Amino acid sequence: MPQVEVGLGDRSYPIRIEAGLLERAGEALAPFARDGRLVVVSDAQVWAAQGGKLRGSGLQIEPVIVPAGEASKSWARLEEVVERLLELGVERNDFVVAFGGGMVGDLAGFAASVVKRGCRYVQAPTTLLAQVDSSVGGKTAINAAGGKNMVGAFHQPAAVLIDPNTLDTLPPRELRAGYAEVVKYGLIDDPAFFAWCEANGAALLAGDAEARLTAIEQCVRAKARIVGEDERETKGRRALLNLGHTFGHAVEAESGYAVLHGEAVAIGMALAFRFSAERGLCTPEDAERVEAHLAAAGLPTRVEVGTAERLVAHMVSDKKASGGRVPFILARGIGKAFVDASVELGEVEAFLARELRR
Amino acid sequence: MPQVEVGLGDRSYPIRIEAGLLERAGEALAPFARDGRLVVVSDAQVWAAQGGKLRGSGLQIEPVIVPAGEASKSWARLEEVVERLLELGVERNDFVVAFGGGMVGDLAGFAASVVKRGCRYVQAPTTLLAQVDSSVGGKTAINAAGGKNMVGAFHQPAAVLIDPNTLDTLPPRELRAGYAEVVKYGLIDDPAFFAWCEANGAALLAGDAEARLTAIEQCVRAKARIVGEDERETKGRRALLNLGHTFGHAVEAESGYAVLHGEAVAIGMALAFRFSAERGLCTPEDAERVEAHLAAAGLPTRVEVGTAERLVAHMVSDKKASGGRVPFILARGIGKAFVDASVELGEVEAFLARELRR
Repeated sequence: MPQVEVGLGDRSYPIRIEAGLLERAGEALAPFARDGRLVVVSDAQVWAAQGGKLRGSGLQIEPVIVPAGEASKSWARLEEVVERLLELGVERNDFVVAFGGGMVGDLAGFAASVVKRGCRYVQAPTTLLAQVDSSVGGKTAINAAGGKNMVGAFHQPAAVLIDPNTLDTLPPRELRAGYAEVVKYGLIDDPAFFAWCEANGAALLAGDAEARLTAIEQCVRAKARIVGEDERETKGRRALLNLGHTFGHAVEAESGYAVLHGEAVAIGMALAFRFSAERGLCTPEDAERVEAHLAAAGLPTRVEVGTAERLVAHMVSDKKASGGRVPFILARGIGKAFVDASVELGEVEAFLARELRR
Repeated sequence: MPQVEVGLGDRSYPIRIEAGLLERAGEALAPFARDGRLVVVSDAQVWAAQGGKLRGSGLQIEPVIVPAGEASKSWARLEEVVERLLELGVERNDFVVAFGGGMVGDLAGFAASVVKRGCRYVQAPTTLLAQVDSSVGGKTAINAAGGKNMVGAFHQPAAVLIDPNTLDTLPPRELRAGYAEVVKYGLIDDPAFFAWCEANGAALLAGDAEARLTAIEQCVRAKARIVGEDERETKGRRALLNLGHTFGHAVEAESGYAVLHGEAVAIGMALAFRFSAERGLCTPEDAERVEAHLAAAGLPTRVEVGTAERLVAHMVSDKKASGGRVPFILARGIGKAFVDASVELGEVEAFLARELRR
């Protein structure tokens, strides 16, 4: 079964991808237990549906359960989880397992990074979005009044355990949202993979095991490579992973998180390509092709919330902003994304105003 | 004027020690401002007494003020400070200045480590304890229900700016508490410095500028060296800095923080030496000499709170605990501290029961 390595010196770690991996949780998780005991952070929905896999592992599982949903990426839940980890006697050398989607991974990973100034953790992602993207790379966070993912840490997991079978019970809307991040890897620098998505996306979304596995492996390989080159997003390389995210975060925040993260990324990628086309960077045909594929996958591609002014205001507080400027990920074509730090926010605002009238 | 370097590769930073440094705050702080603007975290007491030095710097200072006292190292204040930094538009490349004692440094440093997954910060310590110890080395934290400093990060400052003149208005009790950490550096591995303390401690506490400067430089040199060798306390080297802290944290927590940190460290160091003497590791004369000097400096040396059982319970949840064992820093003599991970907690409890009856 495929295993991918994230190469970060003494913080390197393996990504195991294997259908049924967590149905054999005892074998997969035992190396991370201490005296047969393992603390698992999950959400109520995932735990109810899939917790049995871990409870049947033969290990003494200590579950720390938070409510499902993005609202759990909050100060209050962070405090609750960290205090619970302390009560459970988690030590610096112990591992905490994050068992769930992107929310659980972000919250549990951040909690692990601050408990006793940092313990270790393992990502066991159960959504497509988490499996192809958020579980790899060590970005952890909660949301603040000041914006999404505005408080957090770079804290690499000790391992990522991906069992595509956990997707069997994932609601279709969540699956589609995760698929937006799959498409992203094609759009960044792999036109052949985008073509693969056009040919196989429908099968993947229908639950085809082979397509699922291929996509997951392809995405984590790409992400592992990029993270290995630029762990802390200081060299302009990792920033490419934010394709669709600057526009997307603004849409997500403005919707009060009614638009899912992956849906917002789909909208953001469509916007990034249309904006690039308007600026003559890529052809209108490329932008149309991107939009057509996202729409065919059942994903939104238009911004329908807020005003141009409000959306731009969200962008200015972006984490990547520097000296009041916001770097945008634009594209010279499919698979030709690049960072453009010279975009004038006035232009973006005018563009968004036109988009809102479309 | 002395400048000490903390050598940590690309996280190396200078410690400037200079009487009057912050009275020339414009020169000292200007390199850390963006467009002449600088965010400063401080506490109400320090800000009222010494904020004028910064306000008169010619920079546009944005103060973020928390109440004085250990109680501000809380989840609630952390959230408040981080959200305020976001409102002020702090970016990843910006610097936040921590202007105050250990509490301010710990809280502001931790806030800086999590805002947008980490911005930079400068320590401008205003207490003896912070100048000789806590401002150097990158340990940041808040206190949790689960114990003191139980939530935090290793996050190195970009610079430490030490102005001994800020000690002129420090309450005598605070000065004595900080002095306990000065003595610690002699006890760990520098018997000549302990002898210096015996000869010059009274002058230092009386405000002698020369003695102050000598002690600060000596301590930060020692700390910089140890931190450079073992940044994250994984090699047994940095753990030596916890001399007096395992006993001390228990006393501090059990007193509800009525005993100051430095006072608790004094008690803890006296206990560590008496415990070492009981075990035949050092002579009773060494333990008496340590106690006599601390007492002469007006510091407490006896444990007077809680029960042996409760004190040991605090130790078990220590951050350095591993596999349920707690490493103790014991001593084979003055300047001969070492880590002993094999101490039975039952012995410690019996020792503390005797100490409480003394």
